[in-house]
Amino acid sequence: MQIANEPREKGSYVVATYRVRDMQEKLAARAEGIAVGLTVGSWTDLPQAKQPAVLEYCGQVRGIRVLDEADPGALGETHSGSQDQTHSGLVTAEISIAYPVHNFNGTIASILTTVFGKLSMDGEIRLVRLDLGETLQRQFQGPKFGVTGIRDMLHIPDRPLLMSIFKACLGRNVDDLTDAFLEQARGGADLVKDDEIFFSEDYATPEQRVTAFSRAAREVEIETGRKVGYAVNLTGPASKLADRARRLCDLGAGALLFNAVAYGYDILAELAVDPDVTVPLMVHPAVSGALYGSATHGIASDIVLGSLMRLAGADIVIYPSPYGSVTLPRSEGLRLVGALRADSPHKPVLPAPSAGIYPGLVPKLVSDLGTDCIVNAGGAIHGHPGGVVDGASAFMAAITATVQGTSLHEAAENHGPLARALQKWGTGQ
Amino acid sequence: MQIANEPREKGSYVVATYRVRDMQEKLAARAEGIAVGLTVGSWTDLPQAKQPAVLEYCGQVRGIRVLDEADPGALGETHSGSQDQTHSGLVTAEISIAYPVHNFNGTIASILTTVFGKLSMDGEIRLVRLDLGETLQRQFQGPKFGVTGIRDMLHIPDRPLLMSIFKACLGRNVDDLTDAFLEQARGGADLVKDDEIFFSEDYATPEQRVTAFSRAAREVEIETGRKVGYAVNLTGPASKLADRARRLCDLGAGALLFNAVAYGYDILAELAVDPDVTVPLMVHPAVSGALYGSATHGIASDIVLGSLMRLAGADIVIYPSPYGSVTLPRSEGLRLVGALRADSPHKPVLPAPSAGIYPGLVPKLVSDLGTDCIVNAGGAIHGHPGGVVDGASAFMAAITATVQGTSLHEAAENHGPLARALQKWGTGQ
Repeated sequence: MQIANEPREKGSYVVATYRVRDMQEKLAARAEGIAVGLTVGSWTDLPQAKQPAVLEYCGQVRGIRVLDEADPGALGETHSGSQDQTHSGLVTAEISIAYPVHNFNGTIASILTTVFGKLSMDGEIRLVRLDLGETLQRQFQGPKFGVTGIRDMLHIPDRPLLMSIFKACLGRNVDDLTDAFLEQARGGADLVKDDEIFFSEDYATPEQRVTAFSRAAREVEIETGRKVGYAVNLTGPASKLADRARRLCDLGAGALLFNAVAYGYDILAELAVDPDVTVPLMVHPAVSGALYGSATHGIASDIVLGSLMRLAGADIVIYPSPYGSVTLPRSEGLRLVGALRADSPHKPVLPAPSAGIYPGLVPKLVSDLGTDCIVNAGGAIHGHPGGVVDGASAFMAAITATVQGTSLHEAAENHGPLARALQKWGTGQ
Repeated sequence: MQIANEPREKGSYVVATYRVRDMQEKLAARAEGIAVGLTVGSWTDLPQAKQPAVLEYCGQVRGIRVLDEADPGALGETHSGSQDQTHSGLVTAEISIAYPVHNFNGTIASILTTVFGKLSMDGEIRLVRLDLGETLQRQFQGPKFGVTGIRDMLHIPDRPLLMSIFKACLGRNVDDLTDAFLEQARGGADLVKDDEIFFSEDYATPEQRVTAFSRAAREVEIETGRKVGYAVNLTGPASKLADRARRLCDLGAGALLFNAVAYGYDILAELAVDPDVTVPLMVHPAVSGALYGSATHGIASDIVLGSLMRLAGADIVIYPSPYGSVTLPRSEGLRLVGALRADSPHKPVLPAPSAGIYPGLVPKLVSDLGTDCIVNAGGAIHGHPGGVVDGASAFMAAITATVQGTSLHEAAENHGPLARALQKWGTGQ
């Protein structure tokens, strides 16, 4: 079946590319089936007179590319639990389908439901690329702050930012947590973020924490002249999040940490356009691995945490660094950051590679990402032999040295905490 | 590290079971790392006096079970893209962790973020079971209608329901769509559902459709005495969904179709407790395959579409039947339906096995699920040789025969449309 409509102006389609495993001779029909089935359905059954109006909404096959030739012998090695009776002709291929932008309604749910709704359940298939196109991007505002807005807010014009992660929050009262905040802030953290699993609504509510920690941050600013932002975990019933976000901004939050995958992209998108949400939105990647983790199913990480988060208006995206404890391969991480910064109508997003970061890794992170990034650390701040202040201070010394082109070993000669950190965790070479 | 706290009363924990691939000798430490790391973190660093308060929130290892022994030779065959350098000692195992219910805040985001947030990104790991426990379940209202409520509403005391799926919606105006609705309703469909990809906000808004179709449904009720419910796709910005849902109820919607995975579970949960949402919530499984599709990553389908949907308050869950075009293995489908019906404080949910359903499959569906199910069909209604009315009528004849214990072939002797359907699509044997 050949679809007759011509391509429209550039950008009026969203182009999704799927990696599939299928019989080579079935690919063309399958691609047509997707283009039509996920848009206008069985339109050919309609009376002739009605078809032109419907065709405006029809998808188009943009490409079919076979990635490998059939290799029956190799199949058993690449497919977990494959039950195929016949292997001949099976190939891995990429199918690209263009969906008219006016099929969507300005929500990310409408995009996901269309391009990977039913299709997500159709055997071995993975959404590997999603070219949103300018028309669709312009329907969203994107990040309110982006890299420059965050730098302006914190008065840090060019170096990487240092973020410290709260550890062991659950069950501790606000006074106790305030002490922990103060240590991290005094050590030199630009941002201190909540644990994403902190959902207290009784012994230490987000409002209580923001009130206490922003007072503590002012103390540190008076002591040191440095601004420290507290990224508070935005939690609660979905419909109450916007009110709470506004309240937390009023109370002095430095940023809002948000479990955007667990809550839904469209909630993030509405927070981003809310004029009373006056601080950056920091996305935590919780649950995202359930979408991107498999090589053969789900959705690529640079879509889940990259292009869709930027579209929805994330200012900061935390993601697993290639060097730590919970890792994303380096090439995937770079693609993800690429999506956060690619040419687009939207501001670039600040990436925060995370999990198992220690001072010795700072040169590698800056070499990979440049200075527009957040060095996000937990264990190597809290576990520093000299304590939390030394832990944060060692990171800041590593950041300063890296930006100045000094080696960490050289810098450590005049910085005890950095020397001890390098001794404990190494230099990441 | 051994955690000292004793199990509390039954049900005050949520127990998550993960399937992992790891070195056998590392499993115990990994399990402890999850139990502690995803709850209280590095609590042992706290002063002794503060530890008891924190321990209240600590997770517990409930079990570690090795599923297979190390088999270096088999590894390459069962693992896609495995890059392990050393195979010895690698096993597949299940780790069960209990999380205190008071770590959560009554949102599904808090549960998912805790039990499979960071962990979802930690290599080859899949959330395979989630025992919510009664304490947590009682924090949610669950389905407002459930099986009995839906049967009461439609005046169908015991047989399977027939639902017809709109096809080719995009680009068609309300008059046109009303004709299509009428055909499906006249043929005998109890419910007519929107295409889940229908997001029109201009040429045929949900409000316009509900207004027109509920008028059409009244016509059919006058003609035939049968009630027909229209399941309208609930779409739009996240914060406007509740208002729209209430409006659509007022205008006469029969049910609300909702892309709950794309929007987020907590939005569904709030719709379910809204007293002005006065019709059943029907969950479409769009995007769910991105979570459950892989055998080694993500989250099992009976959690994604089963227990979590029931917790959030779905009245009907659509899922891929094992017999159609987009399929879930039969055992998985039965587990999913099991979760929709298991003993719990919540009403049972009506399952709607879907995709590629034809009349010949009705006996199989009823044999698998009993009569408390929805026979959900699109192509085999719209593609019936005699037209849509015959298509729906053939299904209803198959349902009636199955409930009465008559074979479809016998029933077809006195029912032309059923005979033609069996001839076209077979008997599903």
